[in-house]
Amino acid sequence: MVGAEGDGWDLFFKARAMVDAGEPVVELTIGEHDIRTDPSILAAMDRAARGGHTGYAMMAGTDELRDAVAARVQARTGVETTRANVLITPGGQSALFAAHHAVCDEGDRALFIDPYYATYPGTIRGVGARPVAVAAHAEDAFQPRAADLAAAAPGAKSLLVNTPNNPTGAVYSRATLDGIAQVCLDHDLWLISDEVYDTQVWDGAHVSPRALPGMADRTLVVGSMSKSHAMTGSRIGWLVGPAPAIRYLANLAIHTTYGVPGFIQDAALFALNEGAGLEREIAAPFARRRAIALDVLGRQNAIRALPPQGAMYMMLDIRATGLSGIEFAEKLLDTHKIAVMPGESFGRAPAGHIRVALTVEDARFAEAFQTLVDMAGDLAR
Amino acid sequence: MVGAEGDGWDLFFKARAMVDAGEPVVELTIGEHDIRTDPSILAAMDRAARGGHTGYAMMAGTDELRDAVAARVQARTGVETTRANVLITPGGQSALFAAHHAVCDEGDRALFIDPYYATYPGTIRGVGARPVAVAAHAEDAFQPRAADLAAAAPGAKSLLVNTPNNPTGAVYSRATLDGIAQVCLDHDLWLISDEVYDTQVWDGAHVSPRALPGMADRTLVVGSMSKSHAMTGSRIGWLVGPAPAIRYLANLAIHTTYGVPGFIQDAALFALNEGAGLEREIAAPFARRRAIALDVLGRQNAIRALPPQGAMYMMLDIRATGLSGIEFAEKLLDTHKIAVMPGESFGRAPAGHIRVALTVEDARFAEAFQTLVDMAGDLAR
Repeated sequence: MVGAEGDGWDLFFKARAMVDAGEPVVELTIGEHDIRTDPSILAAMDRAARGGHTGYAMMAGTDELRDAVAARVQARTGVETTRANVLITPGGQSALFAAHHAVCDEGDRALFIDPYYATYPGTIRGVGARPVAVAAHAEDAFQPRAADLAAAAPGAKSLLVNTPNNPTGAVYSRATLDGIAQVCLDHDLWLISDEVYDTQVWDGAHVSPRALPGMADRTLVVGSMSKSHAMTGSRIGWLVGPAPAIRYLANLAIHTTYGVPGFIQDAALFALNEGAGLEREIAAPFARRRAIALDVLGRQNAIRALPPQGAMYMMLDIRATGLSGIEFAEKLLDTHKIAVMPGESFGRAPAGHIRVALTVEDARFAEAFQTLVDMAGDLAR
Repeated sequence: MVGAEGDGWDLFFKARAMVDAGEPVVELTIGEHDIRTDPSILAAMDRAARGGHTGYAMMAGTDELRDAVAARVQARTGVETTRANVLITPGGQSALFAAHHAVCDEGDRALFIDPYYATYPGTIRGVGARPVAVAAHAEDAFQPRAADLAAAAPGAKSLLVNTPNNPTGAVYSRATLDGIAQVCLDHDLWLISDEVYDTQVWDGAHVSPRALPGMADRTLVVGSMSKSHAMTGSRIGWLVGPAPAIRYLANLAIHTTYGVPGFIQDAALFALNEGAGLEREIAAPFARRRAIALDVLGRQNAIRALPPQGAMYMMLDIRATGLSGIEFAEKLLDTHKIAVMPGESFGRAPAGHIRVALTVEDARFAEAFQTLVDMAGDLAR
């Protein structure tokens, strides 16, 4: 359940209602770009639609888009990847659901890391499996420990990880990923690797765990055009994995989604063919705002924060204020009309934190972030 | 599973491969129009996309489209229907899956009628429930008997019906629907009513079982723009049902689809606002080809067929030829390069039948249908 009692999601809905009522709220809540999908991508979609690509699509995706995704993944990871390894899905969330549906049966234990993206436990419950959280700790910069994973692994069917990470901004280190891979190999787990932020890495490098020894046969990678190409509303993503799993998933798609609109697939193909330049352009504002935030944080000591390594969020430790994440976020919204997400909305591990999305225009972001930090400073004194 | 060994779906794939290889096959197989989505609808989509409707959509659908669907349903059925009764889905198949997901738990018995649309049993299995077929008989014009439903109902959670019917072309009579409703009320079943062919009625009138006494609280209606507006590739449909069920389904959507592209919803809204004129225009070719087929059938006696009452298909009884549906369809494809679906692809009840889709241009359809009937005549002699 997203938005359950007491988990802080009511703040998001309260802020959205204030915006709808015309109040000047600065929304630093969800991972939505402050730009729209590029007109060139929309023009490609219109050309495809008017060109007649409006009938039932191939269930696994068009050959051309599957080839382009395979080439992209192979170029970035070095792992041989062909069309047979790719299923096009209506967005990353649909891919997460399908991946768990494919590998978990009723009652199976399915592991995920806390802090987590809000839909994870509900997605696992949605396929009838039992979500089991493994905590990653603030003192470890939210990198999960292999020993904790190993302790939870016996009897589990799958492990879901997300790097670059929402909500923490962590990019998993090679050591962390080696530990994850070893646990999967030792306990015969499927790894479901959510890599939708793979174009937003500010510090270090993104390593896809599918590229680690022995992992290509047991990893399903979740990808999406939402974050990399500002195509959130187009609902297009993919799963990359072993060919037999992809065949199974294509059959599942017949019964769940019946494929993805062809004109959207053509738009995604156009966008991928634009190459890394477009991806860098779309990621650039988040890098700028991250720098603005780090500059502000460098001149205070009420808030502790590790520099975010990736993704469009920062996780701030506000425990020195004496408030919970929910209390801090409520006060910030009520007093200053600035909306952030309480850490508590993403699990137990990030209690006493807030998540700030880097998703408003630079000057407005700078002002709001300074206000937030000043409020923390006043509270901590 | 769609396309399992021995169910005749290999014929569909064989025909499609022949077409891809450049062979002049007449495909009378699946329910895809021989026209594309109307340019005016695609223009509306492009306007919405360029106008900025490219971000995350509201999970249950846009207010405007939900209102339009509610108004359409209320106008056609007389049942009070508001936005709160409507969830927009990425197509009818997604709605079928979500409806079963919402009302069935692991291992529950879920009833459906044989003959059936090919995805039905797999959709039920996909949510962990147990598909239980109830046969409708050729001698009853494929209208299911209330007594058969009542016999299967004890312990079941849901009943899935489809009128106008694919594959049989039957439109359920008021008596049939009264029987269905009574069984649902007597055995506390949810009724999942697939009404995606509701604009294609040639004989009699479509009655939505949600409108029958006591049924609005236990019926989930599956709707779609695919058949009514030739928008198969746009993947847009809906569920209509009790408000609490729709709230539950909107939460499920967060974990399965994450909503429907806003620009597609705007295109659908435009199409619905075009009114019944556009729907009649899109349905008209099927009515013409039905008349052509009935004319040909009237001048022979090898094939028995009830005049199809609705939907874009005819189910023909070819048992007088001494062949099974699969054998007849194979011979027709191999000898005359005409592809139809064997009845066996849609269950046990339509064995010895073939399903003919009314989906190619009139003159080509007339020639192919005459060839089909002549072949049956030669075999029956």
